[in-house]
Amino acid sequence: MTLPTGFRYNALYAGIRKDPRPDLALIVSDVPAAAAGVFTTNRVQAAPLQLCRKHLEATHGTASAILVNAGNANCATKSGYLVAVETSRNAARALNVPASHVLPASTGVIGVELDPRKINRCIPKLVKGLAPGKFLDAADAILTTDTRRKVVTARYAGVGIAGMTKGSGMIHPRMATTLGFVMTDAIIPKSKMRAILEYAAERSYNRLSVDGDTSTNDTLVLLANGASKVEAPADFKRILADLMEQLAEQIARDGEGARKLIRIEVSGTRTEADAVRIGRAIANSPLVKTAIAGSDANWGRILSAAGACGVVFDPASAEIHLQDVLVCRRGLAAPFDEPALKKRLDDPECEIRFALGGDDKGSARFWTCDFTEDYIKINASYRT
Amino acid sequence: MTLPTGFRYNALYAGIRKDPRPDLALIVSDVPAAAAGVFTTNRVQAAPLQLCRKHLEATHGTASAILVNAGNANCATKSGYLVAVETSRNAARALNVPASHVLPASTGVIGVELDPRKINRCIPKLVKGLAPGKFLDAADAILTTDTRRKVVTARYAGVGIAGMTKGSGMIHPRMATTLGFVMTDAIIPKSKMRAILEYAAERSYNRLSVDGDTSTNDTLVLLANGASKVEAPADFKRILADLMEQLAEQIARDGEGARKLIRIEVSGTRTEADAVRIGRAIANSPLVKTAIAGSDANWGRILSAAGACGVVFDPASAEIHLQDVLVCRRGLAAPFDEPALKKRLDDPECEIRFALGGDDKGSARFWTCDFTEDYIKINASYRT
Repeated sequence: MTLPTGFRYNALYAGIRKDPRPDLALIVSDVPAAAAGVFTTNRVQAAPLQLCRKHLEATHGTASAILVNAGNANCATKSGYLVAVETSRNAARALNVPASHVLPASTGVIGVELDPRKINRCIPKLVKGLAPGKFLDAADAILTTDTRRKVVTARYAGVGIAGMTKGSGMIHPRMATTLGFVMTDAIIPKSKMRAILEYAAERSYNRLSVDGDTSTNDTLVLLANGASKVEAPADFKRILADLMEQLAEQIARDGEGARKLIRIEVSGTRTEADAVRIGRAIANSPLVKTAIAGSDANWGRILSAAGACGVVFDPASAEIHLQDVLVCRRGLAAPFDEPALKKRLDDPECEIRFALGGDDKGSARFWTCDFTEDYIKINASYRT
Repeated sequence: MTLPTGFRYNALYAGIRKDPRPDLALIVSDVPAAAAGVFTTNRVQAAPLQLCRKHLEATHGTASAILVNAGNANCATKSGYLVAVETSRNAARALNVPASHVLPASTGVIGVELDPRKINRCIPKLVKGLAPGKFLDAADAILTTDTRRKVVTARYAGVGIAGMTKGSGMIHPRMATTLGFVMTDAIIPKSKMRAILEYAAERSYNRLSVDGDTSTNDTLVLLANGASKVEAPADFKRILADLMEQLAEQIARDGEGARKLIRIEVSGTRTEADAVRIGRAIANSPLVKTAIAGSDANWGRILSAAGACGVVFDPASAEIHLQDVLVCRRGLAAPFDEPALKKRLDDPECEIRFALGGDDKGSARFWTCDFTEDYIKINASYRT
């Protein structure tokens, strides 16, 4: 794994979650980096997210560090905003950077006060132990109900990119996702950062759903510190979108209780937005997701989910493939080998292709996972 | 149970479903009745639904009979429309009424051809056995994964009303629900039928969700045959809405895998539509529904679901009660006795009250059920 230069990382157990795994991470750029963020569209927004946005505005898109905790979302809490201010100010002091250069983020349970002392007392040790090689330690510390770490790295045209993300439930990002941090040592003008991040987020995180629930803490931050001395190539936003697709796919694969990753390809719609809407409807249908869990080629539920989403289309032009097998043609059953397909649906990856005939060129990809008893078990007991 | 006069019913096993329970029902009005229907808004619409709508248009809202089968939705089938035409024409002949006076309806699996001979050969016996007292036989025959029958009857101001419905999964009606038939012997002008039915459907079936999936076959029909010789009272639409609320609640209570009925009361929104939207978002949140399944007073998920639904509100004005216990005040945790509330959440009925402070008067009720492992089990294996 080759990481972008000029970034250091660390993580510790601060006692925020019960389970004694590291729950506090710090990501630092050696020099102030160009920074952009996209955030949840939920009306209820966590305090650290509000402060993070404020800092990005105040600095016109500059940041030196990201301070992030797991185990407590610091959302719907009385002291929330003050806690975010105080802890990021402390981190800024220890790093000798302006307070507005530290971007705070939190994930975990909603509605429980977060004790700032837990974070404050760890900051000296956290800063002291910063090292370029501790990328994975930070990536592990931001996980909650995740069962595996989610990272991606790439080198391209002389620049490095590394991303980490988390998320397993309450995943239905609209504008961003639960938490995602992408670092690059490319030189990117501050004025271009937002557009690049929004382009990539729209094609990756915004096409992902585990359970249709949009979190209160969704935060996705891109830092570009220019340490490579190389300007970002012209197609950087596409490279970034590609890497962020991989992060989004990792989230879907690790959806709460999931046994299968589901990739949905929609094509032949009038617009890309229509394709996204159909993809989202299929991805959010519990009936489709339970059918996939049971390896049941129940294409009627896919057709019904698409039909109910509000996009105007002629059902008689619909074609559905499951695992490359044509199961529905012109809106009707296509003959297929049922036991053979059932077996192929046992794969840990499932592909649903939904196409409308005709000349329309709208298309989109969407990611989700199957819906199993374990999702229920995890979520019937998560908080208590 | 006192039934409206002038209606007869019957049901038989026609061999459409594997399980040898009656799967074909006939509802007949002794004289042509004023009739109105509301139907699914899914783009994919079952053949019998299309014919039913056409018949209602052709007769300007007159019907003598409803012919309904369970076990096969007759949707996304090659011969679907012809099957609906042929079987309802056969029923009309046997009843000696115009073909357009028979309203067909189907429910069950999507995408499997329905053999019309199974229905046709039963029609003579079905007609011969019609009787005013066989209301419950018909109500039982329309059930699919339902675990109990769903009926309602009332007498009011000299007129009788009886309704039957079905539905357990793929329940998220928009304009109507899976199947519902309401008979009254009141005199109602044909011109008023649609408005009355739409008023009542909007306040009952359209505020119900089991799993957020809107079916392809949703059909709700109201028949008024005037046999009581009494005109419907002025507030008939409210009476009807009230009875249909009871039917909707029965569907939620019998949601697939459900152990608990969840009643959601939203108030203090700018408009009724906003209240409905918040109610729907809470009702469709798998995280809220699994928390209730686990008797977990996880109000943060309720707040988050409301916040993500698109309605603009100030989170600091939100107040949430669970089982009459205040758990969230001004968007923050309210102190409550956690073990005591956990125990109360074990009840088979759960009430969520979500209120926004201020002077706004928008409010709505919504029904759903908890989300259990059994929903997954039922739906991972339903088709095969």
